[in-house]
Amino acid sequence: MTKTTPYATGAALAQALFTPQRIALVGASADESKNTARPLRFMRKHGYQGTIYPINAGRAEVMGLQAYPRVADLPETIDHAFVMVPGRQVPEVLEQCAERGASVVTVFSDGFAELGGDGVAAQAALAARARELGVRLLGPNSIGVVDVHSGAILSVNAVLEMDSLRAGGISVVSQSGSMLGALLSRGAARGLGFAKLVSVGNESDIGVGELVDVLVDDAATEVILLFLETIRDAAVLGPALRRARAAGKPVLVYKLGRSAQGEALAQSHTGALAGNDAAVDAFLRKHGAMRVEFLEALFELAPLARRYAKTVPVLDRHPRIAVVTTTGGGAATVVDRLGLANVDAVAPPDAFIAQMAARDVKIRQTPIIDLTLAATSAQYQDLVEQILESDWCDAVLCVAGSSAQFHPQLAVRPIVEASAVSHRTGKPLLAFLAPEATQSLDLLQAAGVPAFRTPESCADALACLFRAARSRDAVTATPAPIVWPRGLPTTGDLSEFEAAKVFAAAGVPIAPMALVSETSLAHAVPYPVVAKICSRDILHKTEVGGVKVGVRDNAELESAADQLFANVRGAVPEARIDGILVQRMESRLLELMLGYRNDPLVGPIVMLSAGGVTAELHRDVSLRPAPVTLAEAHEMIGEVRSTQLIRGFRGLPRGDVDALARTIVAFSNLSAVTEVTIAEAEVNPLFVREDGVVGVDCVVRVG
Amino acid sequence: MTKTTPYATGAALAQALFTPQRIALVGASADESKNTARPLRFMRKHGYQGTIYPINAGRAEVMGLQAYPRVADLPETIDHAFVMVPGRQVPEVLEQCAERGASVVTVFSDGFAELGGDGVAAQAALAARARELGVRLLGPNSIGVVDVHSGAILSVNAVLEMDSLRAGGISVVSQSGSMLGALLSRGAARGLGFAKLVSVGNESDIGVGELVDVLVDDAATEVILLFLETIRDAAVLGPALRRARAAGKPVLVYKLGRSAQGEALAQSHTGALAGNDAAVDAFLRKHGAMRVEFLEALFELAPLARRYAKTVPVLDRHPRIAVVTTTGGGAATVVDRLGLANVDAVAPPDAFIAQMAARDVKIRQTPIIDLTLAATSAQYQDLVEQILESDWCDAVLCVAGSSAQFHPQLAVRPIVEASAVSHRTGKPLLAFLAPEATQSLDLLQAAGVPAFRTPESCADALACLFRAARSRDAVTATPAPIVWPRGLPTTGDLSEFEAAKVFAAAGVPIAPMALVSETSLAHAVPYPVVAKICSRDILHKTEVGGVKVGVRDNAELESAADQLFANVRGAVPEARIDGILVQRMESRLLELMLGYRNDPLVGPIVMLSAGGVTAELHRDVSLRPAPVTLAEAHEMIGEVRSTQLIRGFRGLPRGDVDALARTIVAFSNLSAVTEVTIAEAEVNPLFVREDGVVGVDCVVRVG
Repeated sequence: MTKTTPYATGAALAQALFTPQRIALVGASADESKNTARPLRFMRKHGYQGTIYPINAGRAEVMGLQAYPRVADLPETIDHAFVMVPGRQVPEVLEQCAERGASVVTVFSDGFAELGGDGVAAQAALAARARELGVRLLGPNSIGVVDVHSGAILSVNAVLEMDSLRAGGISVVSQSGSMLGALLSRGAARGLGFAKLVSVGNESDIGVGELVDVLVDDAATEVILLFLETIRDAAVLGPALRRARAAGKPVLVYKLGRSAQGEALAQSHTGALAGNDAAVDAFLRKHGAMRVEFLEALFELAPLARRYAKTVPVLDRHPRIAVVTTTGGGAATVVDRLGLANVDAVAPPDAFIAQMAARDVKIRQTPIIDLTLAATSAQYQDLVEQILESDWCDAVLCVAGSSAQFHPQLAVRPIVEASAVSHRTGKPLLAFLAPEATQSLDLLQAAGVPAFRTPESCADALACLFRAARSRDAVTATPAPIVWPRGLPTTGDLSEFEAAKVFAAAGVPIAPMALVSETSLAHAVPYPVVAKICSRDILHKTEVGGVKVGVRDNAELESAADQLFANVRGAVPEARIDGILVQRMESRLLELMLGYRNDPLVGPIVMLSAGGVTAELHRDVSLRPAPVTLAEAHEMIGEVRSTQLIRGFRGLPRGDVDALARTIVAFSNLSAVTEVTIAEAEVNPLFVREDGVVGVDCVVRVG
Repeated sequence: MTKTTPYATGAALAQALFTPQRIALVGASADESKNTARPLRFMRKHGYQGTIYPINAGRAEVMGLQAYPRVADLPETIDHAFVMVPGRQVPEVLEQCAERGASVVTVFSDGFAELGGDGVAAQAALAARARELGVRLLGPNSIGVVDVHSGAILSVNAVLEMDSLRAGGISVVSQSGSMLGALLSRGAARGLGFAKLVSVGNESDIGVGELVDVLVDDAATEVILLFLETIRDAAVLGPALRRARAAGKPVLVYKLGRSAQGEALAQSHTGALAGNDAAVDAFLRKHGAMRVEFLEALFELAPLARRYAKTVPVLDRHPRIAVVTTTGGGAATVVDRLGLANVDAVAPPDAFIAQMAARDVKIRQTPIIDLTLAATSAQYQDLVEQILESDWCDAVLCVAGSSAQFHPQLAVRPIVEASAVSHRTGKPLLAFLAPEATQSLDLLQAAGVPAFRTPESCADALACLFRAARSRDAVTATPAPIVWPRGLPTTGDLSEFEAAKVFAAAGVPIAPMALVSETSLAHAVPYPVVAKICSRDILHKTEVGGVKVGVRDNAELESAADQLFANVRGAVPEARIDGILVQRMESRLLELMLGYRNDPLVGPIVMLSAGGVTAELHRDVSLRPAPVTLAEAHEMIGEVRSTQLIRGFRGLPRGDVDALARTIVAFSNLSAVTEVTIAEAEVNPLFVREDGVVGVDCVVRVG
């Protein structure tokens, strides 16, 4: 009777996870008011057709079904078990589930990694045992998994009480169990239909990345929503996001951590490593995911992204939106927010105004085309259709005023009628309704017109749509491997001289330098030079008197060297000193900083920032997952405000931006170093000149 | 029969505007489908008890009421006329309304200032004539005015079709007619009751400021909502906002213009002057108004502000919020946003955890107190009550998860029960519901617990509440008048030497200087000095070779002077030259900039910013309406990030922050200059030293 299932992945995982034929509900209560009675109640309510086995040690029958005391007592194999018993009993249940052939065990029980300490160990043991047994684990601390189409509901989430679940193309993966329910609830209230819903809990085995990958192949899933607190499997998630993009299935993300407080909270709440939200943001963007700012935008964007993600143009300028409205004030609330996201409301050109005048529709050359009092419904529809056929805007936003509540025929019906043109041309058409207007929202949703309740969500969604398009054709950097220079340490901090060798191997220009010893100061570096103590044990050389600038000749170097050794031996007697680094003094137009870090959440990232204290005071920073392409490097330069000073600011001399971009690329290729993993690296400062760039201080830490 | 009404203000205006006994509807249609038929239909529907006179040239009867061809034909005087005829007929209607004693004429008709050009002139003429006639004018281009309590609805807004209007304490003043309806509609859907609603249209006479002032005295109004595109009457609005604050009636503001695009749009849309949104923001904050960021927060904040604006503490630290939840993820969505607004989620202290343990409620020391699975409703209620009685937090936020939708008894009812403690202690209690949960929202609203639909609106509202409290006890600066120095021009640009005299009169320290002539270079300024050409016609001296730094003695001064005259006469032959300004070279720790501007919307503002290009590149700026107090000056210093460099940054020497604050105050007192109005002034750069500050370049423009 025991099934010998291999560790299920792909389609086999999807089937056992979402559409199991035989389910065990371990710890199912017969008391209908209890949470643990919910899965059975929900499956009955929502029409699950498979076999359900309640496991209950105390009863022979649960809600009319025969109950079994233990999984081991079941008369046949099962596909999927949902476990609701106390955490300490879970290991034994897992053994029995494996023995009864379960491919997937979903653990609702808590008491694992979320508690830290012993909980972490218990979870690791559980996950390791599951792998030995060939069983896939969802959770622990998962509120469950739902397949709306089949009614397979292995979940206790209270919103599943709803009278009917609307089946559709939206699937949700959430690191918060309760938010899974909140999204379903809010989406359903807006007429959205769902396919799969998964709460990943502590992700001891099945994680967000693998689920995205599985959902890319799920015929019922058209768009994937992620509610994230952290990222635990970037190496899986990145490729999965790219597959989703290639398959034309948009992935929409709400991630906590926009504020330092939110980031700290997500870490403590999930036991996650301390990553960098900006790095996660760059990671998601690189791989084509659409990260929304507002919670409601997560599901309000779904219909927009599903229909238009493939047709929206890739632009190297601000997107231009035609805004048609019956409420100037209401439209302005969206346009104001669009301005914050660099999306432009565009006025119609003369030729289009003339074209509409010939069709008896009078409009003016304003960024909001206001039809408040002038137009009939037919004229409104004609205007929207003509704009959708035109070439002077990238999308059409219709904003309806008070009439939307009780008179949808006036300003909502024309949008619905015009939508056929949008669906044919692929030019996005969307709507924001200023008043409370549930009926009009439903009307638009039913007609396939993405509609929004708040101006903020509307602007957020539109900005996401165009931003994600830019990553659609993006090329991934594929640097050649960089061989770790012979003789360098493969762990710990490198000295500056060693770090410079690493950068030279990567192609990052560093000021000419020589390492001289206390006994022989001979070198070939042209004066003037900087003399710096060279020690892997001293990170901040200046603070211990380890740097002397403006050294003009051999005599000055001699006295400088004496002073440096004396200073450093006095301040840091235990430091190992390799000698004195003699480095050519360099001129510059601008000081910047290049940083590299192996982020604990998303892996290698490269960072360009303003030099000195500006980066810290004004957060003048841009980052990307490493390695980057030349195009990405130029984007980064554009994002660091301080680089305006070398890009034609008020007649100041221009710096060598091309050399800077090439250097960013070379530096980002540290991720392609073989033999060792670089934990951190820094060129600080990096001088930008009229011809070329040059780094004058080097840090590398191997981890 | 003609009433001889004086120009109505205060209570008389309020009565005629909101609760007129006899109303004329000028241009009322008998066709119920027309917009112009709406006011009569709406008043019948919503129970208006006064007398309505339809004015219709073509009919003897309108919807069962006797109609009159002209206002002049009415059998008795009227209080208020609502005018819906084409714009060109409005002047004649105004004459007749005055003749029939109307105190207020509300003009729905458009075709005035919003068109620019002739429309501006027509509006000015209309307003001037109304003043002559003693008639108050609302509009033109106003969608009307509504008194919910009496059913007096002089408005065509479509949302008034709703079956019943809920009367309550919220009054709304809007510069967008359609948004008036949207706010009523959305608020009503959330169970909020309204008092007065006013669309101000083009504000040719009655403006936002006067309406706020009138509503402060309105017994039915408890909280005032403003939807603003611009500010046209800051001199009236400022004092009105202060009166509202003193009366304990919060004023909540949504203003367009957060983005440059939104600001430009509001200007073109309203024909307003180009002001500075940051200045408006500072103006509103100074006078205690609560400006929300999100549209829904405008009405969702109303119940919170109404109940707690008076009891919330004035804090000189971040507000501390206790967050109790049944959904960790849902609570985190709010806490993340609160972090952006510098509001802290606070973990309970040990003593409180022990106190609750003794009451059999187990909680942990985390910034989100999660009761997901552990607690009963009674325990939840007890916890919230105990926190409300405690002193370790400033407010309590409850976040309910999926259960809120179908099981309000679990996590919503306890909040309702605990609210009595909040109402007694005055410590704010509010709720955010993660799922769609209309019934629970209604339950909370009915119990007086402010509740929020989105995490963003919730965080926005809470941040506004505490921010506004800080202005509650604020003292207004009252500088002594500053006499304009004798002999200085009273119009146009001043020379730098003259500007320095103005600053000296105000008490702003400027580096010692002397004005010398081409023929006599004698002066008493200690060397080294800067020599600068002194001309009111040259703003950018450096660009025309008009500055020489590091002049060490008389001989160097002589040759510098020759060079400066030669340079400037070559570059700007027409410039009037007063001589050479000899100014002591000054040292500094940090360069800042002080600016002053008579903003077209909100009047005098003072600005402190980083020096050089930093202000422009990184927007490192703080501004306030002038004059400022010493406390406000210190706040401004704290808001300019660059000042960290002189406030104990990484062991750098500290600058004289007290002297800087005193100088900001002195500079802001330029608003107290008598005889002239200063349009713009600038000290750039202002040097901050270890002892004192000193300005080294001065600009004043009198306007």
